[in-house]
Amino acid sequence: LKNRYAVGIDIGGTYIKLALVDINGRISRRSKLSTSNYRTREELIEAVASEVKAIRAEASLPRGALLGAGIGVPGLVDFKRGMVYNLTNLSGWRNTPLKKMLGAKLGLPVMVDNDVNLMALGEYRFGAGKGAKNIICLTLGTGVGGGIIIDGALYRGSTFSAGEIGHMPLKEDGLSCNCGGRGCLECYVGNGYLVEEIKAEIRAGVRTMITKLTGKNVSAITPETITQAALKGDKFSIDFWNKVGRRLGITLTGVINLLNPERIIIGGGIADAGQLLFGPIRRTVNERALPIPRRAVKIVKAKLGNDAGVIGAASLFFTGEVID
Amino acid sequence: LKNRYAVGIDIGGTYIKLALVDINGRISRRSKLSTSNYRTREELIEAVASEVKAIRAEASLPRGALLGAGIGVPGLVDFKRGMVYNLTNLSGWRNTPLKKMLGAKLGLPVMVDNDVNLMALGEYRFGAGKGAKNIICLTLGTGVGGGIIIDGALYRGSTFSAGEIGHMPLKEDGLSCNCGGRGCLECYVGNGYLVEEIKAEIRAGVRTMITKLTGKNVSAITPETITQAALKGDKFSIDFWNKVGRRLGITLTGVINLLNPERIIIGGGIADAGQLLFGPIRRTVNERALPIPRRAVKIVKAKLGNDAGVIGAASLFFTGEVID
Repeated sequence: LKNRYAVGIDIGGTYIKLALVDINGRISRRSKLSTSNYRTREELIEAVASEVKAIRAEASLPRGALLGAGIGVPGLVDFKRGMVYNLTNLSGWRNTPLKKMLGAKLGLPVMVDNDVNLMALGEYRFGAGKGAKNIICLTLGTGVGGGIIIDGALYRGSTFSAGEIGHMPLKEDGLSCNCGGRGCLECYVGNGYLVEEIKAEIRAGVRTMITKLTGKNVSAITPETITQAALKGDKFSIDFWNKVGRRLGITLTGVINLLNPERIIIGGGIADAGQLLFGPIRRTVNERALPIPRRAVKIVKAKLGNDAGVIGAASLFFTGEVID
Repeated sequence: LKNRYAVGIDIGGTYIKLALVDINGRISRRSKLSTSNYRTREELIEAVASEVKAIRAEASLPRGALLGAGIGVPGLVDFKRGMVYNLTNLSGWRNTPLKKMLGAKLGLPVMVDNDVNLMALGEYRFGAGKGAKNIICLTLGTGVGGGIIIDGALYRGSTFSAGEIGHMPLKEDGLSCNCGGRGCLECYVGNGYLVEEIKAEIRAGVRTMITKLTGKNVSAITPETITQAALKGDKFSIDFWNKVGRRLGITLTGVINLLNPERIIIGGGIADAGQLLFGPIRRTVNERALPIPRRAVKIVKAKLGNDAGVIGAASLFFTGEVID
């Protein structure tokens, strides 16, 4: 069981990342394709297959050492059937039998899952979740996603859509969300919303170092700008992260009281704000969550960074739950 | 495996209920003790043991047919050790090794769990949850509790405190809750709060049939009074249940988006308001939850009523997860 490998594939809106991952979660080979190079899903799948074959040939692994290829996609997947129902930022993928299509080209077992689920699996096996059995993984970006590990296995839900922490209501009445709901967490901590909130405050005349950092070019503001300003002591920016952390802390209070997890792992762009964001998240949870689940949980930053997706995808083959 | 039985015991603040339950969830014998008759936990445990022995003797079951005794208690329990950490409305129970104490007296396997967990287990095996694998069970009373079935097994959480739906925040800023948190669902749909809300409205001069039903005696108002008035067409009472159903629907939207369950089972006193309450709960979920998990879930009334506790307690022995 020592020299076992799987290829992990992470299909994103900009890049397709591939990596050869060993059973200890170490990456020995990598490669990357530009998603926009392929006009159809067939072209894209063909390119991925060639790339996997190239990685396999270069690695010249002993027979039986390569267990399969795991793929994460940004969208809704029937994990058992390996069927992609639809992808969030890629068109033409509705009802794609990806497991079957790629498997036929590779002659290898293939498993397909949602990308956030696989980040959670990667962090659980090889990252910030090691040693814990019940984990909630939160990714903060344009969208706010989540993955759930229960008793050491990914919990996908009854129709493979579990984990949508970004669409838990933060406010009883609140902003209309793209999802059709109202007051969803994502409406208040998604990157796009955060930047708009900052711009509105600046237009309203607030004094902040952010305007110095970006000059007159308000459209250049990103979450990183807010962090830079906060790290330089800008009160507005520090308060801003306090506000965002408090919102996350309130939703996580609900998740903690409901699921009593051992660990909450937070990754994605704005997690790079570090203590500026984790401080108020933890303070809010400490103030509001029930004592017993609060004492049981650690809230930590994700460890695998941009590799979480490929490592998680490969580790589908390291969990003993291979679906043929 | 046909003629297998377990005794189910449900320890409540008012009564201790016992029942002999067969592997199909049918009750063949029952008995009931008044909780207040026993001054100490030792006296209470002794009385329960005698009662179990009496039930066993009367039933004259064949050797090996009685698998054990399951007990539900209103409080925090370490299920694996059978240790009661503390009970909500009974004093003197802190750190009680109930499994050991009762087991020694009975010479039978004993398992102990939280009462709401066991209601969920009972409904899953023999009630409104039959056929579903991922279930959320909600009990509405003075407190608002919850039980979670994941992949056909009770999910107890990392430190046995999972399921506290009543302490998920409904409001970002809201009433201070007994639990130490703020804006918890329980603060807005717990029986006590509902009755206080009605009384305040009546004192403020609202016109409602409720005042006719209870005469001048405002303190006689219960959730049943509101239902009676609503069923007679009282607009205030109908609107009141709409408001309460909407609050429950918002919190359940979060639970549905997070866990993608097949079924949500609602029991406890105010669930008797029936369609008056389930109508607005379902409407709110339909308006706000994500399409895929929304279509996957059925929101139904609990079926086992007051028997859920004893049936659930007995069914700890019918699940194949016996802890010795």
